[in-house]
Amino acid sequence: MTELTWEEYEVLQKPLIEELGEMARWVDETGQRVLVLFEGRDTAGKGGSIFSISRTLNPRQCRVVALPSPNERERGQWYFQRYVEHLPAKGEIVLFDRSWYNRAGVERVMGFCTEQEAQDFLAAVPEFERQLVNHGIILVKYWLACDQEKQEERLANRLNNPLKRWKLSPIDLEARTKYDAYTRAREDMLKATHTEHAPWTVIDFNSQEMGRLTLLRDLLDRVPDTKLPLAEIEWPPLANAPLREQFDYLQPLPDYKAPED
Amino acid sequence: MTELTWEEYEVLQKPLIEELGEMARWVDETGQRVLVLFEGRDTAGKGGSIFSISRTLNPRQCRVVALPSPNERERGQWYFQRYVEHLPAKGEIVLFDRSWYNRAGVERVMGFCTEQEAQDFLAAVPEFERQLVNHGIILVKYWLACDQEKQEERLANRLNNPLKRWKLSPIDLEARTKYDAYTRAREDMLKATHTEHAPWTVIDFNSQEMGRLTLLRDLLDRVPDTKLPLAEIEWPPLANAPLREQFDYLQPLPDYKAPED
Amino acid sequence: MTELTWEEYEVLQKPLIEELGEMARWVDETGQRVLVLFEGRDTAGKGGSIFSISRTLNPRQCRVVALPSPNERERGQWYFQRYVEHLPAKGEIVLFDRSWYNRAGVERVMGFCTEQEAQDFLAAVPEFERQLVNHGIILVKYWLACDQEKQEERLANRLNNPLKRWKLSPIDLEARTKYDAYTRAREDMLKATHTEHAPWTVIDFNSQEMGRLTLLRDLLDRVPDTKLPLAEIEWPPLANAPLREQFDYLQPLPDYKAPED
Amino acid sequence: MTELTWEEYEVLQKPLIEELGEMARWVDETGQRVLVLFEGRDTAGKGGSIFSISRTLNPRQCRVVALPSPNERERGQWYFQRYVEHLPAKGEIVLFDRSWYNRAGVERVMGFCTEQEAQDFLAAVPEFERQLVNHGIILVKYWLACDQEKQEERLANRLNNPLKRWKLSPIDLEARTKYDAYTRAREDMLKATHTEHAPWTVIDFNSQEMGRLTLLRDLLDRVPDTKLPLAEIEWPPLANAPLREQFDYLQPLPDYKAPED
Repeated sequence: MTELTWEEYEVLQKPLIEELGEMARWVDETGQRVLVLFEGRDTAGKGGSIFSISRTLNPRQCRVVALPSPNERERGQWYFQRYVEHLPAKGEIVLFDRSWYNRAGVERVMGFCTEQEAQDFLAAVPEFERQLVNHGIILVKYWLACDQEKQEERLANRLNNPLKRWKLSPIDLEARTKYDAYTRAREDMLKATHTEHAPWTVIDFNSQEMGRLTLLRDLLDRVPDTKLPLAEIEWPPLANAPLREQFDYLQPLPDYKAPED
Repeated sequence: MTELTWEEYEVLQKPLIEELGEMARWVDETGQRVLVLFEGRDTAGKGGSIFSISRTLNPRQCRVVALPSPNERERGQWYFQRYVEHLPAKGEIVLFDRSWYNRAGVERVMGFCTEQEAQDFLAAVPEFERQLVNHGIILVKYWLACDQEKQEERLANRLNNPLKRWKLSPIDLEARTKYDAYTRAREDMLKATHTEHAPWTVIDFNSQEMGRLTLLRDLLDRVPDTKLPLAEIEWPPLANAPLREQFDYLQPLPDYKAPED
Repeated sequence: MTELTWEEYEVLQKPLIEELGEMARWVDETGQRVLVLFEGRDTAGKGGSIFSISRTLNPRQCRVVALPSPNERERGQWYFQRYVEHLPAKGEIVLFDRSWYNRAGVERVMGFCTEQEAQDFLAAVPEFERQLVNHGIILVKYWLACDQEKQEERLANRLNNPLKRWKLSPIDLEARTKYDAYTRAREDMLKATHTEHAPWTVIDFNSQEMGRLTLLRDLLDRVPDTKLPLAEIEWPPLANAPLREQFDYLQPLPDYKAPED
Repeated sequence: MTELTWEEYEVLQKPLIEELGEMARWVDETGQRVLVLFEGRDTAGKGGSIFSISRTLNPRQCRVVALPSPNERERGQWYFQRYVEHLPAKGEIVLFDRSWYNRAGVERVMGFCTEQEAQDFLAAVPEFERQLVNHGIILVKYWLACDQEKQEERLANRLNNPLKRWKLSPIDLEARTKYDAYTRAREDMLKATHTEHAPWTVIDFNSQEMGRLTLLRDLLDRVPDTKLPLAEIEWPPLANAPLREQFDYLQPLPDYKAPED
């Protein structure tokens, strides 16, 4: 695992982000549907990685879906039901921050579902995903890995940084001590659901910078990215000299001044 | 207007962001409802300013609402109806990227509503907002200003930067030439809807960095921010030496390597 | 209160239903928005009366809205918020089976809100309803009355008829003994919210048949019902002799035969 | 096909409706999920049959789902997506008035989808339905049949009865002349989707009364209906003599009087 400085990361990321922009344009103009699932360790960096992808794209085209825990009624529904609602329509890129695989991960490890339900889920997934793929959805599945030492470091950071405290859920606390159980659950999941039509890709996120680059490069390689030309837009000069703001009724606030010490 | 470098901005912004985190905790723990409207010139920096506020907060607490154009059925509804759906519940901070004031701005200037509809809207707003404020919603309204020269500069940047091209809407192109009409519409709007219970604040965004700082400082001053202590969390040491990832079924991808030139 | 036999009711109702059909066509073709609130005693006959109106109309035009109790998050919202979502768009007739007036009735009497909340609600209603009426919504409000003797009779029927048992809620049971408190709450509500722009109409439902007729006649009189001609539709004869069903793959079930005793 | 008078129908239907009430209670108390699809000829009687089932049940338990035509965005989604949203949760009975089989019927016959899309759909259905059935949904599928002569009779009735005119869609008019094409489409559909796990049942609706009885009897036979006892409810006598309505602020309307000729 190569560590990168933030500056090195920014330099390396720039051409990938440009390629991502082209890919998004291709998805839009040719009416593709792209669905990317982000699964992995707590603190591995799902949220940050998703954000590094979504932030430069048009939010009307690229949606991030992070569902809350199911409510009572939803717990009595077909397991895939609440996820199906968010599948991409034509031209859309949808990024799932956790997904139906919750059942094979957190729900199974923490005992929120029965072992039978977890097994039924693992048996049902390949056929469910085949339906989506047959329908033409480009489905990409990532599992973000990190060692327990990194996880501890990142949890401690959430504990001690008031701005990040909200990220520390009670489940995180309990999950700390179940690192190994999560490993075994992941292996079962990979065995049952790494299929030809919907393969998994595991990415090492011990370095989040390197992890993001590796993931983004892989994603770009999976989507046939035909470079399309930008539309021509007519851009006549303004007919007038540029106008200044003029306020009659209400004046702007004065500029911010930092407090003197 | 003071120009700031990005580094100066980052230094000045840091303590404000920390204060914002405390404010959010207070909103959560005391069950406040906060609604902030962002209106203003195209390219003034609504989106970036909203993002600088939302990005460090818990997305389950702080929602950004940017509604698309109304569909046919919505156009026949009560004008406020589709916005009401997104008002903050207890403990929530909602940031509206444009709002019901569309009717007094883009809809009026571009002729998407009749002059009568615009007048009816301006007459109805104060009472509508009074209902929200009486109900206990903390309502803050910002109008982001910039000179036409800056607007032209930023539009040209959207035109020429492929990554930003999606931000350039056909309406932007038409609005370029209507700078003055927008000014007049804004003045009418301020006159009709700058009320004691729901006042407007105009912020100069000719410098986006300075604009963001000025806005954030103002927002923090409007919300009574009682500093609450962080909860104590028990943090026992792990019972085992930290574990490493172990992959039996599927190995991680190799690290990304930048292409050699 | 005149009692009617079911047959008498059907005869009297027929011309009113025809007039209702014409009214609905007028609402559709001229783009009106009609909102009818049904409030009243438990068992008075809100549901049946609503159904006698909705059943002959196009369900795409006429919606019945009966909201469940608010969930935790909704309880922290603006009180009118979850109702606003269901207001009629152009061409629609919406029938509310209970409404925002829950706060002045069941919530106040059963202690589901504080007395202060009830008073705030009563103070806010006239202005809220004025906004809807100013917007052009035709707002009609009915309160369905019946004596306690009738109420007891109808509750006993729900108790003893297995098909109606689901109608008997725990709140019904408690409300039995609070007939008088409901009376007082209604009088307060009428005093506070019987306005020129949104008046109440009380209907005697000791006879449900007579109540329905009285209500429907009143509703028809409140909506300016211009009789519009039916569209001409071309109706050429079929080009072939009428075909019979032919089943190759799967045959229909044999007709139902009642079991012999 | 035996014709029944309305009176005969009502007598025969009564015990079935009682059994339906018991079945619904069993579904509720044991947390079943029941999904019934109603497909068939235009005018065969889907709506009336659905209503004869839903009208005595608790609307919170038994939902009728009649989706409008897909909008532009929905047309670009996974074909089953908008239906999945309405699948029954635990304890619910959902009645689909038309369903995903639109693609094999009206869409195929009227050319709203390509022949390839129709074939893809027919190929995908058995696996999709298997997922629902594996999940424990009780899935029942009815196709309601009638001869063209009956269809013509019923269409003419919609044409000439102003109260029913809204039921006459432009598609009905075109479908009149495609009776035979619908027959062939149905046979293809039965062949492709009449599976062991999700079989079709065809019902003769030349007599709507007989059709409803036959369908309801069949439905009751498909759901294992264990008779559960009604809950005991305490029912103390009122502490006071029954009260009469008393109106101080606003008096009820006088009873309806039919206009004299």
